[in-house]
Amino acid sequence: MEAQVDAAPVTILGAGAMGTALAAPLTANGRPPRLWGTELDRELLAELRAGREHPRIGHGVDPNVLLFEPEELDEAMAGAGIVVLAISSDGVLDILHRAIPHLRPHHTLVMVTKGFGRDAAGRVALFPPLLRAALPDHLRNEIPIVAVGGPCKANEVAGGFATATVYGSLDDTALALCRATFQTPRYRIQLTSDITGLEIAAAMKNVYAIALGACDGLQEGDGLPRHDLKSAVFTQAVAEMRTVALALGGRAETVTGYAGVGDLQVTGLSGRNRVFGERLGKGERADDALAAMRAAGQTVEGHPAAFLAVGLVDELADDGDLDPEEMPLLGAIENMLRGATEVEEILSEAALPELSGETTGRRASLPG
Amino acid sequence: MEAQVDAAPVTILGAGAMGTALAAPLTANGRPPRLWGTELDRELLAELRAGREHPRIGHGVDPNVLLFEPEELDEAMAGAGIVVLAISSDGVLDILHRAIPHLRPHHTLVMVTKGFGRDAAGRVALFPPLLRAALPDHLRNEIPIVAVGGPCKANEVAGGFATATVYGSLDDTALALCRATFQTPRYRIQLTSDITGLEIAAAMKNVYAIALGACDGLQEGDGLPRHDLKSAVFTQAVAEMRTVALALGGRAETVTGYAGVGDLQVTGLSGRNRVFGERLGKGERADDALAAMRAAGQTVEGHPAAFLAVGLVDELADDGDLDPEEMPLLGAIENMLRGATEVEEILSEAALPELSGETTGRRASLPG
Repeated sequence: MEAQVDAAPVTILGAGAMGTALAAPLTANGRPPRLWGTELDRELLAELRAGREHPRIGHGVDPNVLLFEPEELDEAMAGAGIVVLAISSDGVLDILHRAIPHLRPHHTLVMVTKGFGRDAAGRVALFPPLLRAALPDHLRNEIPIVAVGGPCKANEVAGGFATATVYGSLDDTALALCRATFQTPRYRIQLTSDITGLEIAAAMKNVYAIALGACDGLQEGDGLPRHDLKSAVFTQAVAEMRTVALALGGRAETVTGYAGVGDLQVTGLSGRNRVFGERLGKGERADDALAAMRAAGQTVEGHPAAFLAVGLVDELADDGDLDPEEMPLLGAIENMLRGATEVEEILSEAALPELSGETTGRRASLPG
Repeated sequence: MEAQVDAAPVTILGAGAMGTALAAPLTANGRPPRLWGTELDRELLAELRAGREHPRIGHGVDPNVLLFEPEELDEAMAGAGIVVLAISSDGVLDILHRAIPHLRPHHTLVMVTKGFGRDAAGRVALFPPLLRAALPDHLRNEIPIVAVGGPCKANEVAGGFATATVYGSLDDTALALCRATFQTPRYRIQLTSDITGLEIAAAMKNVYAIALGACDGLQEGDGLPRHDLKSAVFTQAVAEMRTVALALGGRAETVTGYAGVGDLQVTGLSGRNRVFGERLGKGERADDALAAMRAAGQTVEGHPAAFLAVGLVDELADDGDLDPEEMPLLGAIENMLRGATEVEEILSEAALPELSGETTGRRASLPG
């Protein structure tokens, strides 16, 4: 695949952590981007404009990065080549609608949003098909969509630390363009056509990170290690992400690679989903933990994602594409979110091999 | 598979951490075992005999566990059914030779040793075939060998915390007997016939834990997180364990299950291999770190295992069963052990996607 460098500017929509972080590899490649902020990003933009650090990532941006206020969407997008949607899952479709009047058939849409939404029929869907459905007819099949996953923390990308990412699309030309534009020796990009496996892993890892955090919380509660349980939970989480990916036509290798195993690992090391789970492991009820974190301005993406994942699994089971018995850990997390506090028992039952004594069983991780 | 409970006593050879820990699930099942110690275990036995904690696991044993001194091997093994070899890799063949005069065709041999050895021709081999080769002719095909793997820390097993293990054998009857004997609601056993995949993962995870520890060490060195790098290293480690398992006829699912992903996870959370790696990440040379740990009485199993793993990969490559280009992380660890100190660069090159720009390449984790 030949790299095609497009000299047109890159425009990043969203000046949150990941949107701002992506300015770093682009700048390193001599392509300082345009960074546009939403109404929620005004204070962040003000910090960057003042030459200070972005409050969420601990790094500023190069002076050559052009900053645009919410009212300057037109200027930010005029003449752009690649447009990056760096918006959280609850806002990405709104921002896309605002961007649509400025989109042209030559654009490439890169999406770092991770999670689930619902389609027009109310079914749970991944964001790439939701974005495509939201595009107007004359653009729907013209603009390639590239999804971004993999074990990638915004603060480390911004700091220029070694990072593996995975860019997924059905459009090879768009993938090659993105790699030529974004890749640096420290920010490496693996390409895949398995956008489904990539996005399932990206969305579900936030859910399973709650369970990993809960194991840490159990340990913090009484000072006794729960490494065995945490490792069993990790293994079962990978197995369940693979089960869902396969049911939707994704590939197992995507889930056992950077996008699944890698991203689950990084999400279990830090972040709000892990912290939320930690509180559950220490005995807090889910509603109380969530309220406390909301009061501190912390959103827990894995919470709504868990219920959407349960909905997706139910739909796949109804269609005969998935055996819900293969998803005990997702069920355990749902129970915890609905108020169950016997965290150790619930996670043990869901993540350990079955007691029943068959060599084959519901555990998708079973080596057989 | 029907559980066959054998009323004959279980004899555990080796009163180290894991040998002693296994007394806990057996005792919980009403089967307190006989625990025999080697000459190296005298002080450990004395502690247990005095009703105190085992120094390495923080738990004692039930008074009904019978303790045997090194000179009492005959008494310890008389009439036993299952014999557990809970001896480290450098001593397991010696202890087997001492046990052979007491072995009978009705015995089942359970082995918790993890690592590599060398066969009579000097080739690197796993312990199950080495043990079988060491048995006398009249026992060689009579005594089933069961290998134990999975994410399982001795202190947590001894404390009765939730643990997933994997028992592997080609003998279904032996597997069923072991599960009926050892399994409790908290110590769950998955069975597999893929003893090769199980043992490759068990042996190699100690090697890769060094690289995971090195990422922690980089972070401790300057206070800046290396979560992205650690997650890429974790992913590449799983990919390389899978490559070697497949080359030897093992199954990918074993490596992506409890025995591989799970055991690597638990080994990366604690243990001496991780600590050794941490020292390398903080800038210490391998020889100095190893000497310091040896002086403190700490063996690093991953160190000799790394060189044996390199030898195994070379042999497999010579036979055309494996492409050594798929093993960059093992090569990186070897370089570190041989004195290279550019840990961050070395690990980044080995664990990140290749810069070259192909959609397929040497990275076994590549989703393609």
